[in-house]
Amino acid sequence: MQKMKAAIFVEKGRIVLDEKPIPDVGPLDALIRITTTTICGTDVHILKGEYPVEKGLTIGHEPVGIIEKLGSAVEGYAEGQRVIAGAITPSGHSYACLCGCGSQDGAGTKHGFKAMGGWKFGNTIDGCQAEYVLVKDAMANLSPIPDHLTDDQVLMCPDIMSTGFSGAESGGVRIGDTVVVFALGPIGLCAVAGAKLMGATTIIGVDTLASRMEVARKLGADHVIDFKAGDPVEQIMALTDGRGVDVAIEALGTQATFRSALQSLRPGGTLSSLGVYSSDLTIPLGAFSAGLGDNKIVTTLCPGGKERMRRLMEVCASGRVDLKPLVTHRFRLDDIEEAYELFANQRDGVLKVAIQP
Amino acid sequence: MQKMKAAIFVEKGRIVLDEKPIPDVGPLDALIRITTTTICGTDVHILKGEYPVEKGLTIGHEPVGIIEKLGSAVEGYAEGQRVIAGAITPSGHSYACLCGCGSQDGAGTKHGFKAMGGWKFGNTIDGCQAEYVLVKDAMANLSPIPDHLTDDQVLMCPDIMSTGFSGAESGGVRIGDTVVVFALGPIGLCAVAGAKLMGATTIIGVDTLASRMEVARKLGADHVIDFKAGDPVEQIMALTDGRGVDVAIEALGTQATFRSALQSLRPGGTLSSLGVYSSDLTIPLGAFSAGLGDNKIVTTLCPGGKERMRRLMEVCASGRVDLKPLVTHRFRLDDIEEAYELFANQRDGVLKVAIQP
Amino acid sequence: MQKMKAAIFVEKGRIVLDEKPIPDVGPLDALIRITTTTICGTDVHILKGEYPVEKGLTIGHEPVGIIEKLGSAVEGYAEGQRVIAGAITPSGHSYACLCGCGSQDGAGTKHGFKAMGGWKFGNTIDGCQAEYVLVKDAMANLSPIPDHLTDDQVLMCPDIMSTGFSGAESGGVRIGDTVVVFALGPIGLCAVAGAKLMGATTIIGVDTLASRMEVARKLGADHVIDFKAGDPVEQIMALTDGRGVDVAIEALGTQATFRSALQSLRPGGTLSSLGVYSSDLTIPLGAFSAGLGDNKIVTTLCPGGKERMRRLMEVCASGRVDLKPLVTHRFRLDDIEEAYELFANQRDGVLKVAIQP
Amino acid sequence: MQKMKAAIFVEKGRIVLDEKPIPDVGPLDALIRITTTTICGTDVHILKGEYPVEKGLTIGHEPVGIIEKLGSAVEGYAEGQRVIAGAITPSGHSYACLCGCGSQDGAGTKHGFKAMGGWKFGNTIDGCQAEYVLVKDAMANLSPIPDHLTDDQVLMCPDIMSTGFSGAESGGVRIGDTVVVFALGPIGLCAVAGAKLMGATTIIGVDTLASRMEVARKLGADHVIDFKAGDPVEQIMALTDGRGVDVAIEALGTQATFRSALQSLRPGGTLSSLGVYSSDLTIPLGAFSAGLGDNKIVTTLCPGGKERMRRLMEVCASGRVDLKPLVTHRFRLDDIEEAYELFANQRDGVLKVAIQP
Repeated sequence: MQKMKAAIFVEKGRIVLDEKPIPDVGPLDALIRITTTTICGTDVHILKGEYPVEKGLTIGHEPVGIIEKLGSAVEGYAEGQRVIAGAITPSGHSYACLCGCGSQDGAGTKHGFKAMGGWKFGNTIDGCQAEYVLVKDAMANLSPIPDHLTDDQVLMCPDIMSTGFSGAESGGVRIGDTVVVFALGPIGLCAVAGAKLMGATTIIGVDTLASRMEVARKLGADHVIDFKAGDPVEQIMALTDGRGVDVAIEALGTQATFRSALQSLRPGGTLSSLGVYSSDLTIPLGAFSAGLGDNKIVTTLCPGGKERMRRLMEVCASGRVDLKPLVTHRFRLDDIEEAYELFANQRDGVLKVAIQP
Repeated sequence: MQKMKAAIFVEKGRIVLDEKPIPDVGPLDALIRITTTTICGTDVHILKGEYPVEKGLTIGHEPVGIIEKLGSAVEGYAEGQRVIAGAITPSGHSYACLCGCGSQDGAGTKHGFKAMGGWKFGNTIDGCQAEYVLVKDAMANLSPIPDHLTDDQVLMCPDIMSTGFSGAESGGVRIGDTVVVFALGPIGLCAVAGAKLMGATTIIGVDTLASRMEVARKLGADHVIDFKAGDPVEQIMALTDGRGVDVAIEALGTQATFRSALQSLRPGGTLSSLGVYSSDLTIPLGAFSAGLGDNKIVTTLCPGGKERMRRLMEVCASGRVDLKPLVTHRFRLDDIEEAYELFANQRDGVLKVAIQP
Repeated sequence: MQKMKAAIFVEKGRIVLDEKPIPDVGPLDALIRITTTTICGTDVHILKGEYPVEKGLTIGHEPVGIIEKLGSAVEGYAEGQRVIAGAITPSGHSYACLCGCGSQDGAGTKHGFKAMGGWKFGNTIDGCQAEYVLVKDAMANLSPIPDHLTDDQVLMCPDIMSTGFSGAESGGVRIGDTVVVFALGPIGLCAVAGAKLMGATTIIGVDTLASRMEVARKLGADHVIDFKAGDPVEQIMALTDGRGVDVAIEALGTQATFRSALQSLRPGGTLSSLGVYSSDLTIPLGAFSAGLGDNKIVTTLCPGGKERMRRLMEVCASGRVDLKPLVTHRFRLDDIEEAYELFANQRDGVLKVAIQP
Repeated sequence: MQKMKAAIFVEKGRIVLDEKPIPDVGPLDALIRITTTTICGTDVHILKGEYPVEKGLTIGHEPVGIIEKLGSAVEGYAEGQRVIAGAITPSGHSYACLCGCGSQDGAGTKHGFKAMGGWKFGNTIDGCQAEYVLVKDAMANLSPIPDHLTDDQVLMCPDIMSTGFSGAESGGVRIGDTVVVFALGPIGLCAVAGAKLMGATTIIGVDTLASRMEVARKLGADHVIDFKAGDPVEQIMALTDGRGVDVAIEALGTQATFRSALQSLRPGGTLSSLGVYSSDLTIPLGAFSAGLGDNKIVTTLCPGGKERMRRLMEVCASGRVDLKPLVTHRFRLDDIEEAYELFANQRDGVLKVAIQP
């Protein structure tokens, strides 16, 4: 049995590079040799024990690579093809998928829905911070990379772009909208880019790190607000002349940003939530107009599947959005523990790291 | 100056019938002689001082009547015509209205949005528990009653039907959906009827009063659950074989029903909230899948305007929904204080009362 | 190699019952033993040579049956289970499917879209007027029949209900709409039922056969018009007092009904087209307001997949719609040629026939 | 009675500058002193007698100006304010408006819908190629110009931007879409800009004039096709590698472009039509997949109302789209006949002309 290197969750506080068998390929699977991958904020939650996964699991859900081997029932692909797969890998055939809700894929469950069930890599099955990753339901998930795009250019597609853009999409951003994005980490930065891509004409970013605020401006923020310089809701109301925003995107996962997002809305506005929360949330009565404000709160888990990936790579190819500034550091897989150390501590202005076996 | 009788908010705990001048008619207004009106749960909140309005205000927002006098700039109507107007009376010309958000009408404000601004009758201007009511922006709001419909048949249109149905509409109910409605007061009962009207095939009502549960069955509930007979979420999960519902409609305005509604959803489901809350709300982390469940929470304030009223009267005329069982008691305007006493204390199986000057 | 009986297209004018090998089961397939099926108007087009298929093909796309054998990679089903599959069998994993457009499934094609590609049974692969049928992509398509539903109760789900209902769904029927349905064959009758199920309050059916008009009334038509008794557009305008309809559903596939449907619309209305046309269509300039009328023309090919089938069976189980009147005749598979003879000539008031091996 | 200069339709072939009384101001009206306006392709149709209007009518529907006088019932504006109004001026209070269909505004008609009824200026009432124009329903239509925007910057908002953008909006353009725009006149150019603004990543423009093709590239076209250099459908299929486009926008109003647009679509694609047609249209059977291709044909009349105008001016203010290249020539109102002569004959590379009294 051949072995490969993989970043494995050992216990709270420890993700280590170790050896594992290269997985067997079932009829619907594809084995991908990873050429580039990255670390996500969620992986840090796993590292810190804040999000529970099984000990021994390979971490990582953002694969860029080459098809090494195809399952016997997989058609339409060739070994050697460069591909990506989304962080979320819907089966395509569950009731949830056929209901347009593939991120809650419950293939194999009684009713075909499972909360967050589409998120498999580095969560319920081995992930892609490794030399190889097995992609289930390959025909629904492998998306060939256009020849002229580099690994780096598509590295944000599997999760960061898909999640960030969905903040704007689920929020229903329309031409002429005013949009605020709370927290300008990689997801929030992509939410800024997504809001611009959909026609928002006033985009306000909220953070406190100068480097992130600067990237936000490059990606489309018309204004950036430092939440340490004063109550962000007041600053937003000042910027919008008291009107409030049409859509507020929450990209952090805290009570404070959730509340501020709701308070920033104009009557009838939409809070589009992307953050991963770690405790119950409070909806303030006033911002919610006692339930009579025609407000919406929508949540979205990173849309996956090969059509989504194809569209995001089209965005990269078109030059409409340039996410190169997001990849700030580069490591070999052999040095992934060092990469975790840097990324988990948000040192050295890190936004995203590229990891290459 | 001619006088009329009107039910006036005097102070917390006191709504009394007294005399007031019949209002003057501005160029865009219409004066309606009330022939039938009713009392809403919201009026009881006002009575109890739980929802603040100015002392001296005439209460009531569900008018059925006859055009007594038209403003000089009003075209397309005739004095003597039987009409209704919605509880919410959008101006038609504010930015909010032109944005499809008339219930948050902010005509006259700087940006044209005002939270709950479309609700004027018995809230920010004199209402219709009186012999006459003045309707602003008459051309956007007066909806002629088809000849063959009685006052009683259309009495639920201005608020109860419009609000209840909107619970299903905003929830995006589709053919084949499973829907639960929390609380089977008049609004919840209309939400049941609305869910059926939109094609839900399994409708579950939650309450504890046998009389309401019986009406719910008549209006389309396939199952009714007594929340006193066990945890309603468990009962819903049992009825749906563990799947959960596609849409949960909250029609009461309490933390308990809000939480249960959220917990009843299948992954990716929608909580459609109609209730008027009186304190901050808590979103339980688990039911919200930490923000990753693709859930939506949508709130709706009773849609108004004459087109909405026309459509609801079409529903009445078509016989698709029979709301006659909702009018359980009948009073003369002279006896409205007695009607409040009955209604506020939910005595004698009261659902809605008809009040006639 | 075991043999089975099957209704085979031999040449224009001849569909005959003959023997064929029982198909082999690939890893993603399921072999279904047919217990009930039916003949569709499209099959008659094939019989008449108006719609081309390969000689030797087994006809039929409305299967009700029992799982005989499951492919090696199929999970979540058991042999012996009663199931249906839709007339359209999307793969679940093509770009089209993942784009929400499964009826145009192009699995295996370069870009993943193929016009009408989701329609496979009796079109591009062997169909189900046979003792057995092979279902490709079984996990996306097999929908278990609830125990308490008979074959007859679910026989309309695979095509007639799905297509007919989609006329109302794609038309965006809303509560209070006025809808006209042109042609009251099985599809049109289901369009009537679908429009009612979605809240249309005035439904007008157009046909000339008294028996069909009577069934239309049972399924929800408020008015029925005999197009031989006068210009149908004039009759519709008379019934709507000159307003026109919000949604016109074309369920036949002729220039005359297409034109009348367009002419029946109110400004801004939608023509929802279900018919299969056999020649170019003409859009009359006036009814189209020279392109400035905010009109929509939408077409829909029968939605398929197991979630769609599940929802339609929910409708059957709920009793919301009773399609029993549609099955007017019953034949053994051995007598299918006789059934074609009756059905193709629309004799004896036939609407749909049940065929049982 | 004071007089003003106005461009008046005298008879087929003759629009002349003449004197007319300055109109009286009714209670809901506003009198606007025009500071800049322009000529539309539709005005040329009127000039040529291809679109009938009453003799003596003032032409023009794209007003930029200053409030001269407000009606007695108009609130929320001040005389002296700089404003625009849309080419389409919905009343805000008709059934059509309250149904979200203001371009088909039928205020004053029995059912409140009138085909193209929202287009009043230079069609059913006097237009704005004059020193003054009367705006009906002023509160629904006057949109204040932000101080920092010049007349030129907002001159395209009333019609060209609103119509062009709506081609993309009604087409439902999504992130990653491929879009083709047929004909790169001012409307088509704005459709290109609108498609880009909504996230299309491959935009193909079709025309033959090099100057227009160049502007199209500036506004977002990734490819431009010369329809004289070969069948445009074949060129589009070559550019999309045989896939076809998600959305095809028709911006001319001819059978040839309509047909090509339909033929360019991928299965399930949408034809969004903006052109004004002058004869019946033919839908080719093949491109329509015999009615089974899940295709949509949607038409849109320039959305109006002050909220629409506000949003479009936000686009101008944001710098997201720069339409300055569209204004190629400039005339005084006194020379408007000369402007018509240039514009009607498409001389000197004219795209749009600015007319200033």
